[in-house]
Amino acid sequence: MTRINNHPRKRILAIGRPKFALAELAELEALYDVDFVMPTNRSETKSAIAEICAKTPAPYDACFWLFGWTHYKPFDKDLLEPVLPCGMFAGGGAGYDNVDVEWMSHNGAWYSNTPGTPTTGTADMHIFLMLAALRGTTLAERTCREGRWREGLPLFDDPDGKVLGIVGMGDIGREVAKKARIFNMDIIYYNRRRLPDEIEKELGAEYVSFEDLIKQCDVLSINCPLSKDTYHLISHKEFTKMKDGVYVVNTARGAIIDETALKEALISGKVCRAGLDVFESEPHIDPFFLNSDSVTIQPHYGGFSVGTIRKGEKLILENIKCYLETGKPVTPVNESELRLVN
Amino acid sequence: MTRINNHPRKRILAIGRPKFALAELAELEALYDVDFVMPTNRSETKSAIAEICAKTPAPYDACFWLFGWTHYKPFDKDLLEPVLPCGMFAGGGAGYDNVDVEWMSHNGAWYSNTPGTPTTGTADMHIFLMLAALRGTTLAERTCREGRWREGLPLFDDPDGKVLGIVGMGDIGREVAKKARIFNMDIIYYNRRRLPDEIEKELGAEYVSFEDLIKQCDVLSINCPLSKDTYHLISHKEFTKMKDGVYVVNTARGAIIDETALKEALISGKVCRAGLDVFESEPHIDPFFLNSDSVTIQPHYGGFSVGTIRKGEKLILENIKCYLETGKPVTPVNESELRLVN
Repeated sequence: MTRINNHPRKRILAIGRPKFALAELAELEALYDVDFVMPTNRSETKSAIAEICAKTPAPYDACFWLFGWTHYKPFDKDLLEPVLPCGMFAGGGAGYDNVDVEWMSHNGAWYSNTPGTPTTGTADMHIFLMLAALRGTTLAERTCREGRWREGLPLFDDPDGKVLGIVGMGDIGREVAKKARIFNMDIIYYNRRRLPDEIEKELGAEYVSFEDLIKQCDVLSINCPLSKDTYHLISHKEFTKMKDGVYVVNTARGAIIDETALKEALISGKVCRAGLDVFESEPHIDPFFLNSDSVTIQPHYGGFSVGTIRKGEKLILENIKCYLETGKPVTPVNESELRLVN
Repeated sequence: MTRINNHPRKRILAIGRPKFALAELAELEALYDVDFVMPTNRSETKSAIAEICAKTPAPYDACFWLFGWTHYKPFDKDLLEPVLPCGMFAGGGAGYDNVDVEWMSHNGAWYSNTPGTPTTGTADMHIFLMLAALRGTTLAERTCREGRWREGLPLFDDPDGKVLGIVGMGDIGREVAKKARIFNMDIIYYNRRRLPDEIEKELGAEYVSFEDLIKQCDVLSINCPLSKDTYHLISHKEFTKMKDGVYVVNTARGAIIDETALKEALISGKVCRAGLDVFESEPHIDPFFLNSDSVTIQPHYGGFSVGTIRKGEKLILENIKCYLETGKPVTPVNESELRLVN
């Protein structure tokens, strides 16, 4: 008996396959047709997307991609044009600097991200890197792994009593503030908009100007998004104004700090040590950071953990389901832009 | 003019010289004669102590040593007999397993340590090592330092929602509990004595039997002193009862865990990763730990930080001053034993 499809099902293009949200994926597959492209590098992924789109019996209603193990970004016209016409693109993470949302809006497509899901994991990584920088753990670990125990090691520093200067008091900045308070740090912050009084009180955080923040902090904490305004926000001029021996922690985006200026500041001792999860040209890391004992480095793993990815995958699929059911995702990025386009 | 010493000043033997408590040292030197021996290795330090004691015009009233950059411990008859008769010995740190307090009590001498001073620093190191073990940061750092970015890395774990099992709920265990709570962990603990209700509530910690603790925890946290009762407290039998993929963090003393059993548990995967600040034969570290990516290691640096040593030095000198003024140190270890002797 031939199955007659009187009600052609909506179609979803998935770039990658969920690892954890398996029940949610099964639910989606029961209601809709889901085609998968397994991403590798940029050019292969681009070809695979073009190929599957050429073969699809009807255009895709929605398209999502999962957390990137491969380097096929950015998510732009060049990669995704074959998917059009498509009403919605769904990606993961809080930032979307590598997503061409303008292009999507222009083509009448929603873009949804997963705000909130990387908050806990990224803040935990931030605290880890802050403790690592203050306590000099990378040099200490290398020294003892080389069989030299404490040989030549100085005494390292503590978070206790230090001034933490948070640049960017969104979800992640607030979570960092909350966690840093338990280490008895004094929190100052700068944000485009000052937080309401009651949130400042709850966090025990004091609002200061950007200028005062960089002058007063013992630990500089980068927690803002990357934008035209924050590109190289911290450069030579800013380092000059900081305290000698300041610590720097960045789990946001590499290019918020001018890496050449950071290198110089580490070499001169202006910056004592840094904890870096992000780099200007990642996945390429400047050899200075690869070889320096003054930095603790991680491969942009703040938002990459079992808990974070599980939460992120669930929200990506929820966004898709909600859009297909109601015409609007749960956490859209471009609602106001779409209003202008339509 | 010859200075006539009608009131011979009390005499102090200092093994090492304070680095931070310089004002307190100057105050002590204004009131008392302080002789210094700068410690190197055991045999040289032993000779230097014997030599200065042979030359001293009058016995030392008190003797203190500073935080150990050199390996001349233990503090026992063999090292310190030439200092007798001496009314007081003062050392640093919370533990005193490498101090022969019995011998001191038997000779009518006080021994004072510096309880509380390493609490914050050790708990911070504990949280650092816990985050490192959960988030797999040592393997991630090595991978990206080798220019391989995330190549071959799995997704690592989070503290969020995990059960932390604390063995030993003294000052450090409580500080670890307080800090771990902010990472949204569930705290269970075992201690010789159950804590009062109100402290349990404040910490959000649930008392369980040792047996239940090792069965239920996702992260095993060692925060008890080393004693005959806790030597190899965690060995083959205990690992067998734990959850598969448990994490282990030890900032207390190496010998509380049977290292052979820990190695086997790491190799089999029973223990997923461990964070170790202490080792059975430190400063010698078993080559397995030196070479393993499954452990993050530190050279017993929990209680070694600028803040901790500053607090510790101050309390050592305060103990000396208080003893010389009142006959009793501020934080004696052997008050009850001395009562029995005298």
